[in-house]
Amino acid sequence: MRTLQLELGERSYPIHIGPGLLARPDLITPHVAGRRAAIVTNTTVGPLYLETLRAALAGHDPLVITLPDGEEFKTLETLNRVFDALLTARCDRRTTIVALGGGVVGDMAGFAAACYQRGVPFIQVPTTLLAQVDSSVGGKTGVNHPLGKNMIGAFYQPRAVIIDTDTLASLPDRELSAGLAEVIKYGLIRDPEFFDWLEANIDRLLDRDPEVLSCAIECSCRNKAEVVAADEREGGVRAILNLGHTFGHAIETGMGYGAWLHGEAVAAGMVMAADLSQRLGWLSGGDVARVERLIARARLPVAAPARLTPERMRELMNVDKKVLDARLRFVLLKRIGEAVITADVPPGQLGRTLAERRAA
Amino acid sequence: MRTLQLELGERSYPIHIGPGLLARPDLITPHVAGRRAAIVTNTTVGPLYLETLRAALAGHDPLVITLPDGEEFKTLETLNRVFDALLTARCDRRTTIVALGGGVVGDMAGFAAACYQRGVPFIQVPTTLLAQVDSSVGGKTGVNHPLGKNMIGAFYQPRAVIIDTDTLASLPDRELSAGLAEVIKYGLIRDPEFFDWLEANIDRLLDRDPEVLSCAIECSCRNKAEVVAADEREGGVRAILNLGHTFGHAIETGMGYGAWLHGEAVAAGMVMAADLSQRLGWLSGGDVARVERLIARARLPVAAPARLTPERMRELMNVDKKVLDARLRFVLLKRIGEAVITADVPPGQLGRTLAERRAA
Repeated sequence: MRTLQLELGERSYPIHIGPGLLARPDLITPHVAGRRAAIVTNTTVGPLYLETLRAALAGHDPLVITLPDGEEFKTLETLNRVFDALLTARCDRRTTIVALGGGVVGDMAGFAAACYQRGVPFIQVPTTLLAQVDSSVGGKTGVNHPLGKNMIGAFYQPRAVIIDTDTLASLPDRELSAGLAEVIKYGLIRDPEFFDWLEANIDRLLDRDPEVLSCAIECSCRNKAEVVAADEREGGVRAILNLGHTFGHAIETGMGYGAWLHGEAVAAGMVMAADLSQRLGWLSGGDVARVERLIARARLPVAAPARLTPERMRELMNVDKKVLDARLRFVLLKRIGEAVITADVPPGQLGRTLAERRAA
Repeated sequence: MRTLQLELGERSYPIHIGPGLLARPDLITPHVAGRRAAIVTNTTVGPLYLETLRAALAGHDPLVITLPDGEEFKTLETLNRVFDALLTARCDRRTTIVALGGGVVGDMAGFAAACYQRGVPFIQVPTTLLAQVDSSVGGKTGVNHPLGKNMIGAFYQPRAVIIDTDTLASLPDRELSAGLAEVIKYGLIRDPEFFDWLEANIDRLLDRDPEVLSCAIECSCRNKAEVVAADEREGGVRAILNLGHTFGHAIETGMGYGAWLHGEAVAAGMVMAADLSQRLGWLSGGDVARVERLIARARLPVAAPARLTPERMRELMNVDKKVLDARLRFVLLKRIGEAVITADVPPGQLGRTLAERRAA
């Protein structure tokens, strides 16, 4: 097992990474406040891992709340089902919520923890690669709204993140690839050596080599933890974690939540961001090709769907949270391993990226 | 105008109190971040004060969101209407939300600000006495759930609280009295001189003498600000602000939201808390009589409604947020002007209070 620490003063917390961690009460119980734990999971993950986690929490009389699986259920309505269950079971403000599942479960359970009785402790136990390397770390929680993704939420940090790498064995190939999109992102925005390492190891990652996967997760979490420690509430540098997300959220919203996986949309968005970076004179054509090639090798899309015209993409991007005072901001690349945030993108250049990085 | 400061480090904020403040752009605009303000109000307050506030915010292109009036609308569904309006108008994360109204508007607008795009700035402009002396100060925001009051919410501080005492002229008598319940509370929990002053001035308060009302508001806000500065997230001493609220919330929930005003329920709850304090040997019979008399003079109820049996009250109290690990905690009085928090209440004594402080 490897342990990283996300440094946030009195709200600092450990990130444990390794095989077999779900079964270890010694890792989870020190973070359970009060007498009771409430596990939030979904219909896909529950049957696989709930019993192991429930046994580890046996001393805390765990309540289990099972949600439907899928991004289309990441809504205020589903969140209210969590509140219904907590209140019906008379959970008090020392109940500890444990999120067992992927990004959707973690985002919703975390937001429920942030809001239930104005805040109860929570623990992230992510079971997808995407959740392990990205969404479970850093305290972003929330739900979608029909008019925009992640529009309703809170910054609310967990007490611990417990990453059992064994859970990746059951992950569908498509979700493994989606998680790799966020892994590749860390290389692109701030870790050029990691990007090189990913080019050398992408096939072993797709083959689910446990040692190589653990390395990628650790390196991703370390990058994420450093960025979040520097800027918890995204007043500045944390925004670089949104590389590919302005385009990606537009794709997700435009296609309807759940049609594209988040990681797939971000993958296409990162290629679009690289393309736009080249148009602004930052990346070379060779660098853009490297980005596109690695993403394609990870079995991820490298362009926006044909259905979304440049006009529609623009419209969707304008409700993005990264709009400030009506100016759209982009995370782009100065080079591979260095991100930059800019609101100075000529509309013509953006239009060319939207047109040329759209599937035929 | 008088100005107090709630001291919370970098989240400190001013509380301005005085006549005519709604019309003063110099007080409100320094706290508006970004280009746009969104005023949240309701169908009762809007027609009275919206135009004045809108003029003060004219430089910030104010969006207006009007909610139905009443505690029964303090729900996730109504909150979602605020999100719909903000998103439809493409409000970004620098939009500043301004709450114009009573406690319900302030709690919902504040919670909307806490959650919209994971947090936007907000300003409280309370127009009822209860909101001016209590709910607008201290950062408690949230909505009700059918199974319990204020069960869903956040601690989220405003950038400023602007109390225009002229707005009290239009307040119905019943709501003026409800606000006085919270005013009396500060005397009871930590300010015996203020309690004496209230006994001497209660009739002038009911007559809406502007100078006396301003004094009462300032003293209430100062007490509240001191308690919140000492314990923002209610880990300890802040809980004394809940005097009368364990009983009061049970009454509100049991009667259906909106049947009793919050202040009315708290008033009856404070008499019940005083009664229970006497049973535990703390307050004298004479002190309990003083509490009951002042509350009655303020035209407030001094007992639980006949409809709520002791059994039903117990049931309702058990879902209260003040339950910790299944033990019910009470805020009681050591003497007039000194509160104590205790989980050691013999069930028999509680039962006698519930039976004897119930309307015939």
